[in-house]
Amino acid sequence: MIGDEIHNFARELWSINRSITGEGVRETLRKINNHLQNMTIHSVSSGKKVFDWEIPKEWHVNEAHIITPNGEKICDFSKNNLHLLGYSIPFEGKLLLKELKKHLYSLPEQPNAIPYITSYYKKEWGFCISQNDLNSLKDGEYKVKVDSKLFKGKLNYGELIIPGKSKKEVFLSTYICHPSMANNELSGITVTTFLAKWLLGLKEREFTYRIIFVPETIGSLAYLSKNYKEMKKKVVAGFNISCIGDNRTFSYLPSRNSKTISDEVAKHVLNWIYPNYKRYTWLDRGSDERQYCSPGIDLPIASILRSKYEEYPEYHTSLDNLEDVVTPEGLMGGYSAIQKALELIEKNKTYKLKVLGEPHMSKRKLYPTISTKKIDKQIKLMMDFMSLCDGNNSVLKIANQLNVPAWDLYDQIDQLKSYNLIVTKN
Amino acid sequence: MIGDEIHNFARELWSINRSITGEGVRETLRKINNHLQNMTIHSVSSGKKVFDWEIPKEWHVNEAHIITPNGEKICDFSKNNLHLLGYSIPFEGKLLLKELKKHLYSLPEQPNAIPYITSYYKKEWGFCISQNDLNSLKDGEYKVKVDSKLFKGKLNYGELIIPGKSKKEVFLSTYICHPSMANNELSGITVTTFLAKWLLGLKEREFTYRIIFVPETIGSLAYLSKNYKEMKKKVVAGFNISCIGDNRTFSYLPSRNSKTISDEVAKHVLNWIYPNYKRYTWLDRGSDERQYCSPGIDLPIASILRSKYEEYPEYHTSLDNLEDVVTPEGLMGGYSAIQKALELIEKNKTYKLKVLGEPHMSKRKLYPTISTKKIDKQIKLMMDFMSLCDGNNSVLKIANQLNVPAWDLYDQIDQLKSYNLIVTKN
Amino acid sequence: MIGDEIHNFARELWSINRSITGEGVRETLRKINNHLQNMTIHSVSSGKKVFDWEIPKEWHVNEAHIITPNGEKICDFSKNNLHLLGYSIPFEGKLLLKELKKHLYSLPEQPNAIPYITSYYKKEWGFCISQNDLNSLKDGEYKVKVDSKLFKGKLNYGELIIPGKSKKEVFLSTYICHPSMANNELSGITVTTFLAKWLLGLKEREFTYRIIFVPETIGSLAYLSKNYKEMKKKVVAGFNISCIGDNRTFSYLPSRNSKTISDEVAKHVLNWIYPNYKRYTWLDRGSDERQYCSPGIDLPIASILRSKYEEYPEYHTSLDNLEDVVTPEGLMGGYSAIQKALELIEKNKTYKLKVLGEPHMSKRKLYPTISTKKIDKQIKLMMDFMSLCDGNNSVLKIANQLNVPAWDLYDQIDQLKSYNLIVTKN
Repeated sequence: MIGDEIHNFARELWSINRSITGEGVRETLRKINNHLQNMTIHSVSSGKKVFDWEIPKEWHVNEAHIITPNGEKICDFSKNNLHLLGYSIPFEGKLLLKELKKHLYSLPEQPNAIPYITSYYKKEWGFCISQNDLNSLKDGEYKVKVDSKLFKGKLNYGELIIPGKSKKEVFLSTYICHPSMANNELSGITVTTFLAKWLLGLKEREFTYRIIFVPETIGSLAYLSKNYKEMKKKVVAGFNISCIGDNRTFSYLPSRNSKTISDEVAKHVLNWIYPNYKRYTWLDRGSDERQYCSPGIDLPIASILRSKYEEYPEYHTSLDNLEDVVTPEGLMGGYSAIQKALELIEKNKTYKLKVLGEPHMSKRKLYPTISTKKIDKQIKLMMDFMSLCDGNNSVLKIANQLNVPAWDLYDQIDQLKSYNLIVTKN
Repeated sequence: MIGDEIHNFARELWSINRSITGEGVRETLRKINNHLQNMTIHSVSSGKKVFDWEIPKEWHVNEAHIITPNGEKICDFSKNNLHLLGYSIPFEGKLLLKELKKHLYSLPEQPNAIPYITSYYKKEWGFCISQNDLNSLKDGEYKVKVDSKLFKGKLNYGELIIPGKSKKEVFLSTYICHPSMANNELSGITVTTFLAKWLLGLKEREFTYRIIFVPETIGSLAYLSKNYKEMKKKVVAGFNISCIGDNRTFSYLPSRNSKTISDEVAKHVLNWIYPNYKRYTWLDRGSDERQYCSPGIDLPIASILRSKYEEYPEYHTSLDNLEDVVTPEGLMGGYSAIQKALELIEKNKTYKLKVLGEPHMSKRKLYPTISTKKIDKQIKLMMDFMSLCDGNNSVLKIANQLNVPAWDLYDQIDQLKSYNLIVTKN
Repeated sequence: MIGDEIHNFARELWSINRSITGEGVRETLRKINNHLQNMTIHSVSSGKKVFDWEIPKEWHVNEAHIITPNGEKICDFSKNNLHLLGYSIPFEGKLLLKELKKHLYSLPEQPNAIPYITSYYKKEWGFCISQNDLNSLKDGEYKVKVDSKLFKGKLNYGELIIPGKSKKEVFLSTYICHPSMANNELSGITVTTFLAKWLLGLKEREFTYRIIFVPETIGSLAYLSKNYKEMKKKVVAGFNISCIGDNRTFSYLPSRNSKTISDEVAKHVLNWIYPNYKRYTWLDRGSDERQYCSPGIDLPIASILRSKYEEYPEYHTSLDNLEDVVTPEGLMGGYSAIQKALELIEKNKTYKLKVLGEPHMSKRKLYPTISTKKIDKQIKLMMDFMSLCDGNNSVLKIANQLNVPAWDLYDQIDQLKSYNLIVTKN
């Protein structure tokens, strides 16, 4: 059900021409906010310095295509926005095939895929085309039209703060800068949107949630340059959400520190829902954790993914689509995994037993009155849990020691609290 | 020899009707004190609060049995005290077999065993019977007699303090609340008694020994509620002694902390005397370590056992006897293991080499004067030992690093002390 | 090339009669200083106390041999200085074979080898002979001549201090007390000499180098007793250099601490140049690390060796020679390994990234301007390196995390420094 809703939302966003700046980004943010209502859409001006970088010009495309010698229109941006090299400068002219080919990008090893290519920081124009189509081009004169412009404009991102009992924050980030790409873009946007909806719907939250939708790299750098001092004080956990929509595997990519609560939670959840999940290292990073975990920033941000960017064949090609790659089941699985992780962060308190010695369970009807050789599994679990409530062990740590999923303990914890046997450690 | 003495003592205690309170406990304590002379027998009144618990009423049984429709006396308490459900309330009356069966306990999977069952905290009467005997009962009217009483009385335990050079204590505890049961009761009582005798016979002891004989759970809770503050200051190591009398294996159950000196010593001893010993975890606990290691108490108490409670087929049945299960060899092995552990705790000092650089061994005639390709194994061991005497490594830690049993170092340490080459670190 | 030079130098030193004292030691030190120019040759007087030891008398040999009953001269010291028991007292006399044999040492299991034997601390004379030659001796009267003397003299050692930018020191030690022995003596002397020459030839050095050539055991004790307080303050790393000249394997022997920077460097270098190197433990020690790492001295001295003393068949026999055992290739390999280790100690700084967030590489032309699916391996390595420059990770630690040899990072570090992107942490 939720999987279908998320998938439908991804279809709605599919054909928008997203890049690191431009109208496509703003349109995407507006559609996200149809779900969330209270998201703030920020803008940063071209030319502004953000750490070692500078906000680039805004890019706008009216039209782009190539006319073949026999009059056929190919590489038509209006039919597939992947055809145009990202951030192409304007160009109009006639070229012989040999000259044109210097501006065409294809993937010989995936001959039916249009690659996704950009040139953000060097002035260039170009088209992306499948190798099969490239091979079929005949000699002759081609008419090229790139009706784009690059101008001093804005870089945009969305930010939603959902308050909780604590001012300490859990941070979620996803990116909004790829055109028609399913796993490596829309899965992140849509799953994050639905996670935000779920969080908004909760009666109360332990933590405040800071959720952002940003252009990758330059957007997260812009966001950090404005907010990192505050975030370093407040953020206790978080995830970069990317590639979370196919149904082939689960993956874990650690924070740079690799031992933060986000890492421990991610590993615990994946270990119980998909024990054969793929373990990556910091050296396999490739999304905005590069910024969030960089030296001096050092936020506790890990990644729970399905098939990780750079690691599945359709990555950064037209084959990364909503039919063959990203499915309602895949999105649902990804959504559930991160939901379980956030729930665990909320529940991961440290309790202290309020009595010395083992509590007298039978007087509370929590124990069989007739002794037997072995006690019930649930009661055993409750006794084991209490025996470790010494004020030093978090729920997660205890779950790991007991070799059970943390969520098997949630009801027991509620029961023990209702009997006034445990108390959270101040 | 000692194995036989211990086994004989177990036979002497076999038929006494022990429970968590009552005359059987006191009789057992008196017989223990025949060996120890100076043990103090304490009493705690029914109704007294101990932590989350309350001392139960004292239980006394005069007589208990069932008369079958054809006049046969069965489940006769005077023949086997396991027949009566522990803490049975008084009852006298006539019942049809169908009604009677609600009060009969048997073990279908061990048809010739009488189970050991209790109902300490719910008012109940009942009988324990082998499945074979149960099956042979015919329909008809049965006359039941349980001539017992429950009254405001006392819970008793024994306590022996054996002084040593240090006020720091080693703590030993065993339980005295099971009726005719060999490994899971008498092995603990008798081995502990003979260990206490050995300690009393030593010329001097490094540590003070606190040795208690208590009813399991309620007894250890009562003892702790009176003494835990003092014990937390003084106790540096200790063992709960239970199931130490059969000859089938050795087992180790850690303290909750799992890294105390008691744990290290237990593992070291077992590793050298029985390398395939069974390793349990805190989750497999089941005796008074549940109290001694509970949050806030946190005493460094581990367990060296032979076949562990709950893990051998005869556990808590009439089959746990002094013929087939507990043997003089088994008791001797258990006694020796814990004795080695206590000896190691006594010897486990930290030494410091008194000279800088390697000592000149040949001038002390400790080294061959003619150089050879390889030096003698004992001299090598002595050199290795000294090379690690930097004031940070205990004897146990060095033995582990040298991969030798600690006891192989005791003579060498004496020799090095006599040469004035090492000194204990203050 | 360097391997041949080192091997030639070893040939030059081969036949000198080295022992823990005497003219052979001084002659060896003079020949070393022909290469180094500025080494100081120290002397310590016989009888001086050094820690638990005393400097022995100086030993001088004029002549030593045995004349057989049929007039043949055997065990001639002038032909092979191994024939004479080290530190033999003077003796001249006639003995029957049976009496003579009490003073003859051979190796039955290596019948063609002359063993190397000494008696430093007990007054004794003797000869070493191959088992084959021993077996061929006929009954009769033998004339023995040991024209040696033991007198109050000097123990000598050489010391070279090579200044560096820091007063912190790297310490190298090798021994100079074995007569004609190749791997277990001359490889150490010659490789250390050539390493010192290399260090002297460097434009600058981060660390000061303290390099000593000492008689084993008594020499290192003498050196330490004079210098250990200063060394404890200054020495940050170092190696005892021994058995570094055959071509059969590499070996690593840890410091007593086993986790010093010397240990980490040694393991890193050997792991990359000879992954199957032999791992020894502190218990396998046998050279001057026994003193340098002894309790209270505790210097961070590890050993990189080729075939380790006591572990190869020719050890301490006449078979440990410059033809079959020690080769130019073996010496070159040993020289390179320790050179790589010293270079890594010099380069092993901790860097801090100077910008927050990922540096903008393309504006520095360090990154491809057209996005592709995978980035270049060298650029990836540079990005990974920077991502770990948080001021807590040394170059060695980062190299281990990146699973590359540290030397693959040196050029990248220079490049990043030239771009002003990283800075050493104060």
